[in-house]
Amino acid sequence: MDHSKLGSNSLVILCSHTSTTAETVEAAKFAREKGALTISLTNEEGAPLAQASDVYPKYEWNEGKAHAFTTNYSILYQLVFGVLKVVENNENAILVESGLEQLQNIYEKAASQYHHKAVEFGQQYGNEKIIYTMASGANYGVAYSFAICILMELQWIHSHAIHAGKYFHGPFEIDDEETPFIILLGLDETRPLEERALSFSKRYGKRLIVIDEKDFDFTGVADEVKGYFGPLVLNYVLRKYAEQLAESRNHPLTTRRYMWKVEY
Amino acid sequence: MDHSKLGSNSLVILCSHTSTTAETVEAAKFAREKGALTISLTNEEGAPLAQASDVYPKYEWNEGKAHAFTTNYSILYQLVFGVLKVVENNENAILVESGLEQLQNIYEKAASQYHHKAVEFGQQYGNEKIIYTMASGANYGVAYSFAICILMELQWIHSHAIHAGKYFHGPFEIDDEETPFIILLGLDETRPLEERALSFSKRYGKRLIVIDEKDFDFTGVADEVKGYFGPLVLNYVLRKYAEQLAESRNHPLTTRRYMWKVEY
Repeated sequence: MDHSKLGSNSLVILCSHTSTTAETVEAAKFAREKGALTISLTNEEGAPLAQASDVYPKYEWNEGKAHAFTTNYSILYQLVFGVLKVVENNENAILVESGLEQLQNIYEKAASQYHHKAVEFGQQYGNEKIIYTMASGANYGVAYSFAICILMELQWIHSHAIHAGKYFHGPFEIDDEETPFIILLGLDETRPLEERALSFSKRYGKRLIVIDEKDFDFTGVADEVKGYFGPLVLNYVLRKYAEQLAESRNHPLTTRRYMWKVEY
Repeated sequence: MDHSKLGSNSLVILCSHTSTTAETVEAAKFAREKGALTISLTNEEGAPLAQASDVYPKYEWNEGKAHAFTTNYSILYQLVFGVLKVVENNENAILVESGLEQLQNIYEKAASQYHHKAVEFGQQYGNEKIIYTMASGANYGVAYSFAICILMELQWIHSHAIHAGKYFHGPFEIDDEETPFIILLGLDETRPLEERALSFSKRYGKRLIVIDEKDFDFTGVADEVKGYFGPLVLNYVLRKYAEQLAESRNHPLTTRRYMWKVEY
C-alpha cells in the first residue's frame, strides 16, 4: 500500500464499535508509528483500539436507543466540522452542532412519517431474492451500507448499490418490471444524477421504493447544512425499513451464519 | 462538483469508442475551458469528442480482432507510462512498451489455455440468475466491469463486484453452496486480500470460478511490469468466458433492451 503522504501532519480517524476489530487496531498502530494523530470512535473505551490511539471519544449506542446527539455519526460530524473550522475557518461548525442537537427530534418525526411505508415495504418485499439500491453523492454510502450490511449481511438478500451516475453504463439493462430498486434522492449537487436514473426507472421498472430527503422535516437545522443531515436521517429511516423487512421474513437482524461465529 | 484543482497544469484523459458519448464530450469541453490538456482515445477520429479535445489518438478495434498493441488499453498504458516518464523519470515506460508488443501473443496463449474452462463456465452457469465477482487492487476494475457491463448489461444476470477487502464487512454472509462467485487473483500488493477471501469462500461456497494471474504465461514481459499486464490478460480471458456464457444462454452479447434503443 502507498502511504507516502501519511506522517506527522496527518489526522487518522478510525471507528470500531467493540474497539476490538483487529484490522482497525493494526491500522491505528501503523498510523501512530508514522506520526499521525489517531482518533478512534468506539463504544468501549477500555479496549484495544482505544489503547492504540491518541484520542478515543466514546459514543453511545444502547441498542439503537441512545440520544442521537451522543451517537457515532454525531460525534464524527462534530469532529469533522471542528477540524474544518480550525483548518479553513469553516463557519458551518456551529450550525452543524446546533443541528445535531435537534437530530433526535428529526429522527423521531421521520420514523413516524415513514412508519406505514416501512411496514408496507416489509410486507411487499419480504419474498425477494434480490433488491438493488441506487443513489449518488452523499447518499451513495447510505445505499452501499444498506446493500452490503442490511440486505446481504443481515437478510441474505442479494444486492448491489448502483451509483446513479453509473446506472446508464450498464446496470440499467437489468431494470424491468420485476426487479426491486430502492432509489434515494438527496439534497446535494449530484441530485440530478439520481433524478435522471429515477425518471428512467419509472418508465421501465414497476417495483420502485423511493425515499426523497426533500420530504423530511429538518426543523431546527440551518439551510446551509441541511444537505449534511439528509444521509443521517435517510439511514435512520432505512433502518426502520430493515426492521420491518426482517419481521416480515422472520429473519431477525441479529441472525448471522459466519460473522463472529467462525474464523475468517 | 468540485473542480478546484482543474486548470492549466491538468491532463485529462477521456475515452469514447464512437466519440459521440454526450457526457464525455461535455467533460472534454469543460476541462479544456479550464485550461487542461485533453487527450481523447477514440475509434472515430472525426467525431465530436475528437473535435472537442486537443489530442485524439485513434485506437483499433475491428470487432475485437485488432492487434493488441493498437487497441485502447495499450494506448492508454503507453500514454500513462509516457506521462510518468516525463513527470517522475519512471523507468518502466520502455519495459511497458516492449511488453505491449508481446500482448497479442500473451492474449492468444491465455485464450487457448482457458478455452476449455470458458466452455465449461458457459455450460455450468448458463441458467444462473445471479453471479458475483470479487477482486481487489488492479483487478477490482476488471471485476467491476465484468459485473456491470458483461453480466448485468449484456446478459441480464444480477451481479455485484465485491471488493475482496470488503467481503468480510457483510457480503460474505451471502456466500453459500448455491451462489456462484468469480474470484480473481492478481499479482499486486493486495493479493493477500483476494487470497483471504478465496480461502473463506472455499470453506463455505461450492460454486467458485477462480482465475489466477499466476497461471498466465507472460513471456516477453519484464518482471518489473508484469503486475500491470495481469488485468489486461484477465480481461481478455473473461471476455472468452462471456462469449461462452452468451452462447450457452442463447443471449448474444449484442442484445440490448434500452441502450442505444430508447432515450435516457
